[in-house]
Amino acid sequence: MRIGVLCSGGDSPGMNAAIRGATLRGVDVHGFEMVGFVDGWRGFHEGETVELDRPAVRGLSGQGGVFIGTSRVPPFDGGPGEADLTDFRARFADYGLDAFMLIGGNGTQRVSSILHDSGIPVVGLPKTIDNDLDGTDYTFGFDTAVSIATEAIDRLRTTGDSHRRCMVLEVMGRDAGWIALHAGMAGGAQAILVPEFPESIDQVCDWVTSVRDRGRSSLVVVAEGFALAGNGSQVTRDGRDGFGRLRLGGVAESLAPVIEERTGIETRATVLGHVQRGGAPTAFDRVLATRTGIAGADAALHEDWGTMAALRGDRIEMIPFADAVGRLKTVPDDRYAEVRLNFG
Amino acid sequence: MRIGVLCSGGDSPGMNAAIRGATLRGVDVHGFEMVGFVDGWRGFHEGETVELDRPAVRGLSGQGGVFIGTSRVPPFDGGPGEADLTDFRARFADYGLDAFMLIGGNGTQRVSSILHDSGIPVVGLPKTIDNDLDGTDYTFGFDTAVSIATEAIDRLRTTGDSHRRCMVLEVMGRDAGWIALHAGMAGGAQAILVPEFPESIDQVCDWVTSVRDRGRSSLVVVAEGFALAGNGSQVTRDGRDGFGRLRLGGVAESLAPVIEERTGIETRATVLGHVQRGGAPTAFDRVLATRTGIAGADAALHEDWGTMAALRGDRIEMIPFADAVGRLKTVPDDRYAEVRLNFG
Amino acid sequence: MRIGVLCSGGDSPGMNAAIRGATLRGVDVHGFEMVGFVDGWRGFHEGETVELDRPAVRGLSGQGGVFIGTSRVPPFDGGPGEADLTDFRARFADYGLDAFMLIGGNGTQRVSSILHDSGIPVVGLPKTIDNDLDGTDYTFGFDTAVSIATEAIDRLRTTGDSHRRCMVLEVMGRDAGWIALHAGMAGGAQAILVPEFPESIDQVCDWVTSVRDRGRSSLVVVAEGFALAGNGSQVTRDGRDGFGRLRLGGVAESLAPVIEERTGIETRATVLGHVQRGGAPTAFDRVLATRTGIAGADAALHEDWGTMAALRGDRIEMIPFADAVGRLKTVPDDRYAEVRLNFG
Amino acid sequence: MRIGVLCSGGDSPGMNAAIRGATLRGVDVHGFEMVGFVDGWRGFHEGETVELDRPAVRGLSGQGGVFIGTSRVPPFDGGPGEADLTDFRARFADYGLDAFMLIGGNGTQRVSSILHDSGIPVVGLPKTIDNDLDGTDYTFGFDTAVSIATEAIDRLRTTGDSHRRCMVLEVMGRDAGWIALHAGMAGGAQAILVPEFPESIDQVCDWVTSVRDRGRSSLVVVAEGFALAGNGSQVTRDGRDGFGRLRLGGVAESLAPVIEERTGIETRATVLGHVQRGGAPTAFDRVLATRTGIAGADAALHEDWGTMAALRGDRIEMIPFADAVGRLKTVPDDRYAEVRLNFG
Repeated sequence: MRIGVLCSGGDSPGMNAAIRGATLRGVDVHGFEMVGFVDGWRGFHEGETVELDRPAVRGLSGQGGVFIGTSRVPPFDGGPGEADLTDFRARFADYGLDAFMLIGGNGTQRVSSILHDSGIPVVGLPKTIDNDLDGTDYTFGFDTAVSIATEAIDRLRTTGDSHRRCMVLEVMGRDAGWIALHAGMAGGAQAILVPEFPESIDQVCDWVTSVRDRGRSSLVVVAEGFALAGNGSQVTRDGRDGFGRLRLGGVAESLAPVIEERTGIETRATVLGHVQRGGAPTAFDRVLATRTGIAGADAALHEDWGTMAALRGDRIEMIPFADAVGRLKTVPDDRYAEVRLNFG
Repeated sequence: MRIGVLCSGGDSPGMNAAIRGATLRGVDVHGFEMVGFVDGWRGFHEGETVELDRPAVRGLSGQGGVFIGTSRVPPFDGGPGEADLTDFRARFADYGLDAFMLIGGNGTQRVSSILHDSGIPVVGLPKTIDNDLDGTDYTFGFDTAVSIATEAIDRLRTTGDSHRRCMVLEVMGRDAGWIALHAGMAGGAQAILVPEFPESIDQVCDWVTSVRDRGRSSLVVVAEGFALAGNGSQVTRDGRDGFGRLRLGGVAESLAPVIEERTGIETRATVLGHVQRGGAPTAFDRVLATRTGIAGADAALHEDWGTMAALRGDRIEMIPFADAVGRLKTVPDDRYAEVRLNFG
Repeated sequence: MRIGVLCSGGDSPGMNAAIRGATLRGVDVHGFEMVGFVDGWRGFHEGETVELDRPAVRGLSGQGGVFIGTSRVPPFDGGPGEADLTDFRARFADYGLDAFMLIGGNGTQRVSSILHDSGIPVVGLPKTIDNDLDGTDYTFGFDTAVSIATEAIDRLRTTGDSHRRCMVLEVMGRDAGWIALHAGMAGGAQAILVPEFPESIDQVCDWVTSVRDRGRSSLVVVAEGFALAGNGSQVTRDGRDGFGRLRLGGVAESLAPVIEERTGIETRATVLGHVQRGGAPTAFDRVLATRTGIAGADAALHEDWGTMAALRGDRIEMIPFADAVGRLKTVPDDRYAEVRLNFG
Repeated sequence: MRIGVLCSGGDSPGMNAAIRGATLRGVDVHGFEMVGFVDGWRGFHEGETVELDRPAVRGLSGQGGVFIGTSRVPPFDGGPGEADLTDFRARFADYGLDAFMLIGGNGTQRVSSILHDSGIPVVGLPKTIDNDLDGTDYTFGFDTAVSIATEAIDRLRTTGDSHRRCMVLEVMGRDAGWIALHAGMAGGAQAILVPEFPESIDQVCDWVTSVRDRGRSSLVVVAEGFALAGNGSQVTRDGRDGFGRLRLGGVAESLAPVIEERTGIETRATVLGHVQRGGAPTAFDRVLATRTGIAGADAALHEDWGTMAALRGDRIEMIPFADAVGRLKTVPDDRYAEVRLNFG
């Protein structure tokens, strides 16, 4: 069996470990041929490939990024019309492929689903630092992102305490606040602001003030997709979009001056940015990614197509694509309530 | 409600976060009184306590160890005879307690079960770096131990490669090989030796030799409870116990000279020791411990006695003590097979 | 002898270790009384103090920030006129002080110098993450800042390589480029932009392009005070100040879109910000800070007033204030040439 | 000019950065040819080499170990007799070499000196994690070793505090106690035991007891070469060598049971071992190593033979071999006194 391996979307710590796990299992144990497409669909379109075997994946378990590259180049020119799919299948045949192993997040697994429905054998390996993929407890990359954000909170807290400042840290999470929730809980943040649960500026400032009144400095973690509740135009002095969603220079940089103005407490913003998706994966993500890759290779062996490797408890299970891509996994009410009760 | 909090057994990163989570939830939200017993049952016997409230747990989320102390002092003088339990209940009443929150591993949760059966309201919070507690996916402390062991593997590998040496790392795990399994997988070890699966010295040396033949240096991770298969007296030159179980100076120090002698490859042993149970917990363990503490406080509110907070997928559930302490959770066949197939 | 200890200016990892070192030596060995002023000169003005002794500094060696607080509150209302100094001396006498130990950077040590000249016994402990204080090889806090910036480079590089992006990292350094120079060298940056050496946008883009032509992704480290050579108004589309100094949203955020536009290479900016001054100091900074504190206490014993503890090779020496505050220590030509020769 | 590069002795974090610095400067800037000998003198004897150029050293700055390998294979069969040197020069000519760049510690730089005296052009790059090379403030590898040991102390302290145990950590340092001194100071150890300053077992136990009496747990750092003062045979129950030098299982494992027996305080030993010499170098070591390599290449350009790159303050200077290898750099009295005064 000859399997094409391809990454799509943003990189996520653990992708190398996943490809290594799939290769060691697929090539060495199951006797597959495996070929990686360089830079995702670009490599598929332009015929740039790399052979995957034991020497190719040597020492990759702890390396960040992904050695075969990834990109946001789409698999089809337009939408996936019948002509596109016919072209795609021809190309697939030209490469001598029997199946695809697609590594990506929500968008990629939706493509996996379309390809599978059109008759191309596909297994999916989920990856997203945002942890917003349904059907799996966690995706690799998330634990690393949370660790980096937690370390940033630990660092910001000491400088905030020394200067009696309110520190606002912006982390990734456009639609789901998982990184903010977990890093905020791990770092003992005094407020955690996520896209799923708008809070008013009055509420945020109340929390900051009550922390000061107890003699402490506050640390606010905010996901990039958070929006203030109510009419945002009243609280942001510029850059507002008229619907309360803070815009100019990111949410932390919009929020910090407002907090400072309203509470009288010196407030500083930090945007963690790309740092949280790069570098060596945590041991947790290395293990999860390796097991995900192994499970993908085993699924190929058993021709268990149309499935994605999901973490369920301490097991990896193959689940139908439909269970993963139907909806975005967001922070549920009880998880937010769990932390919110102790804010301030 | 007045709840006594007590740690027993070895310390585990995350214990402070668990007590902090339980306290913030129990005292601030549910209105409990909570009191910690210093150094586990010693504090209970000798009346040394510390009041738990918000200021007492401030900033503890990321701190290693446990601020109220822990010890292996037993709860009863002898076994838990009827007289012991009567004395115990009297003491419990003297402290004005309504319930216990017991933080510990297998042994401690067995005590929890006995106390509960004798009529004392108890909730259990599981902790063990060994991850050998049944009924829960993971226990806090385990992820930190795995992270530290993985970092050690990463470090040993570079010095092993530079000198073309075989490096043997001994990690904790007397009865269960979880730390070795996960750290070995994360670090890409060429052999992972666990108590559950004896291997012969010939097999171990074959793996080491085959790695050398591919031009690499090998890294062997061994859990402290591992024993060679077959008649160990033939393979260890001294310190053997006649049953193949390596004894003198730990398993790594016994194994290394035998590997060197048989393969002709310079081999060095390192024993990670106490380093792997100390220090700041990982973000994963901080979150797990905090949530475990919160769930314990909620269980107390609902008088859900006789239960232990368990991680099930991405949820914390309270499970009966019987589901946790019935058997030791060891590495199952498929998990070991998963890694073993690619050794050497 | 009764000594007042006070921090001024931004916090720097190692301040706690310095105060601990000075206290253990001063109080326990030399028999001083030592008192810390809370939040720098604010505590001095408002009479908020904390007694310094062994229990007060317990366990502080590895803690970030500074437990007695620091601020930018000035020592005098206006400039240091004769009336101000008379008031100051009265206050100094009211506190029963015999001497001051002032912990700070350039500005603080200039104040140390003024106080000393006006007859107040002072010893200075230098601290600045920027490393721009003359007369000393390094100041504590710098090594920690460089370490954090280097880790950020390591992380950004993997995500840059995976996406074939140019990553631009902005680090601290308004007037001196030491953090950029050392972190850039440690992380193998393809260009290091510092305030001391303007480069043209053409030169920067040439470096980025030549890296791409070799098949790699480039990593540019830029100090916040860097300005493009030549007429900056031609290269920045907005936010320029007419003198080539990039302004809006920081230098990295101004530079990134220009690089992308000119080279056609996707480019992303990250601003490290406050993260680089917080958190646990490196072992190097803990040792340097502890030794600095000890040397300060010894200088007080010997009434070696008007001096600052400086690192000279592997020794700590007390040097006159004049040798430290006369000029800003900036990156010299040969150090920049050393790295610039291999750019691109 | 064609330069042979060779590592000898134990590996040290930063060796890759040093070779990278020397190569980028030597090949790209000065136009040298550079060739690495694999596994030190073994590669020289057996003709195994690797060409050094920009692609060969790509991305190596942060990698631990050394990619061309190192070994303890000696340069000459016997001593360096005239016949050996004649053979050596013939071999040197056969490789077409104009000069040697030798990377190593005390032993290696002594060889450098012999080769130089016999007419072979040599520059030396110092490396040793032990920091015992004279003439230079620090050698690369030392800062990394100290960092790892400090992190171990931080971890051991939390578990020691939780159990009220005395923790004994053994670090490297057979003849010089630099790692123990710096890590002990950084970690706030209650006793630091180094080869240069024997202490009696009574003194050590006094320190441990006095810490307990203050309500704390003690942390003892001991260099592997430390020996108890006085007649050691009275204090070790087995494994003693009759001269007071503790032998069986290392010094920590001999010391711990004696401390426990005498003080009644539960005591645990940890031997850090090979972990402290492996893995990614700190930013400090990467910068020092890179600059050392650059200085070596520049020295070759100026034919400044017979010299070693030394750190002097914040400058790298080339010093005569004689200034480096004459004597071992050990911990001086004042540095030990500095910490000893506050023990217990």
